[in-house]
Amino acid sequence: MELLLDACDDEYGGVVVDHGKLPSNPSAFASMLRNSLSDWRRKGKKGVWLKLPVEQSELVPIAVKQGFEYHHAEKGYVMLTYWIPEEEPCMLPANASHQVGVGGFVLNQHKEVLVVQEKYCTSSNTGLWKLPTGFINESEEIFTGAVREVKEETGVDSEFLEVIAFRHAHNVAFEKSDLFFICMLKPLSDKIIIDNLEIKAAKWMPLVEFVEQPKIKGDKMFKRVIEICEARLRHRYCGLSPHRLVSTFDGRPSSLYYNVVDGDDDSSHSNCTADFY
Amino acid sequence: MELLLDACDDEYGGVVVDHGKLPSNPSAFASMLRNSLSDWRRKGKKGVWLKLPVEQSELVPIAVKQGFEYHHAEKGYVMLTYWIPEEEPCMLPANASHQVGVGGFVLNQHKEVLVVQEKYCTSSNTGLWKLPTGFINESEEIFTGAVREVKEETGVDSEFLEVIAFRHAHNVAFEKSDLFFICMLKPLSDKIIIDNLEIKAAKWMPLVEFVEQPKIKGDKMFKRVIEICEARLRHRYCGLSPHRLVSTFDGRPSSLYYNVVDGDDDSSHSNCTADFY
Repeated sequence: MELLLDACDDEYGGVVVDHGKLPSNPSAFASMLRNSLSDWRRKGKKGVWLKLPVEQSELVPIAVKQGFEYHHAEKGYVMLTYWIPEEEPCMLPANASHQVGVGGFVLNQHKEVLVVQEKYCTSSNTGLWKLPTGFINESEEIFTGAVREVKEETGVDSEFLEVIAFRHAHNVAFEKSDLFFICMLKPLSDKIIIDNLEIKAAKWMPLVEFVEQPKIKGDKMFKRVIEICEARLRHRYCGLSPHRLVSTFDGRPSSLYYNVVDGDDDSSHSNCTADFY
Repeated sequence: MELLLDACDDEYGGVVVDHGKLPSNPSAFASMLRNSLSDWRRKGKKGVWLKLPVEQSELVPIAVKQGFEYHHAEKGYVMLTYWIPEEEPCMLPANASHQVGVGGFVLNQHKEVLVVQEKYCTSSNTGLWKLPTGFINESEEIFTGAVREVKEETGVDSEFLEVIAFRHAHNVAFEKSDLFFICMLKPLSDKIIIDNLEIKAAKWMPLVEFVEQPKIKGDKMFKRVIEICEARLRHRYCGLSPHRLVSTFDGRPSSLYYNVVDGDDDSSHSNCTADFY
């Protein structure tokens, strides 16, 4: 009798080799994978997902030799795929495509903005005072990530108000795209304690002085962002605020970011007419 | 003399093994990798990036055995990393964390919304008429992706108006997070030609009828999205529109999404007072 790999069906006519125990002997794995592929082909299966834990990395070249392609990898495993139907285009979904960053615009009642100088930056940006920024963590909310990054880099506590704009750029790290959310935050403390690992210096800087830095002044993108923040302070601009909602459609709790609509009585974090102080 | 791998320095005190030729002999690779690691350690290097092309997958288990971890993978390669300083926490940036989807709200002058039924969906959603949705392609703009998805699924040409809201959800595909942008589009044609691979049916459906579907009506998230779209039609809501800007900061052309600020004379795709028809 032919030995087959443990696999389960997915909703899209494919199979997933994930939870089962994989043979530790490479040649046993090679023959089981070959048998399984014939079996799946016979049964009209489409996409095959093969998850190989890092502890069994010696199985990777065997799967590649049988025609598997890399799909994605995380610290603990590499996921390989195989599309069986030769006459149909591959319908397997792509790998994650974006990194998500946040920047915090934190202004105090003296019209001073919270700024940092980074330890690691390109030489042309040395000495530039910039907003605290960073990537959001796995499964982290944008509003949580913005508050955390500000706290980590500067020690300042803050309250999230709104996403006021976002930037979409491509071919950033590892050729991936980047979504960067510019967030308005209200400071809840003012004492600065910097994170020595990433940050060289941090301070409260008069907004006028911040804007006058040549790098900021000469940059259309930055200029526009600052204009928006200033318009928001004058209640002439309305950003998007997060509202926690559970979709019964997929049962998933998630955050929907939008303006406050007329008649909206949702207890959101903020709305366009909210004062900062 | 000890043979070392071809490597170049990065800006963060680390090294990258990428463009050089890797030895095809696994045991030669094993010894060169070991020598290189000692050499980098001696030189005080921090993070090591090792990119192994799929054609040399037999080198993967060798690197893993020497302590390398998977970082990410794409069809053609797997990227492994090694953090040398034992006394410092690993500062290597994470892998891409998000998938980005778009949904198109396309309403015609008869107050009919463009809807589809998907071929592959969970059994509880069979028969549901929903907005055309999809993931954006690698390096694709949100505004381009929304127009493309509507065209592919329904054959209808449209013009992008605004991102009216976005949803952030976690642990979606491969435990990654998901950002879903709800976009308002203006139809430029009305003839429907469906994409047989993904779509079972598409049609123009009266908005009132669309909203009355139990799955939509009973879902807080959908209900809110439809309310926002309706508010937008009455000029009581303002979404974010894309503006192409080049940042001199990093020289990268990108799209900044924001409301139109007073005094803004930018020729953007739309603004809050723009009529649909």
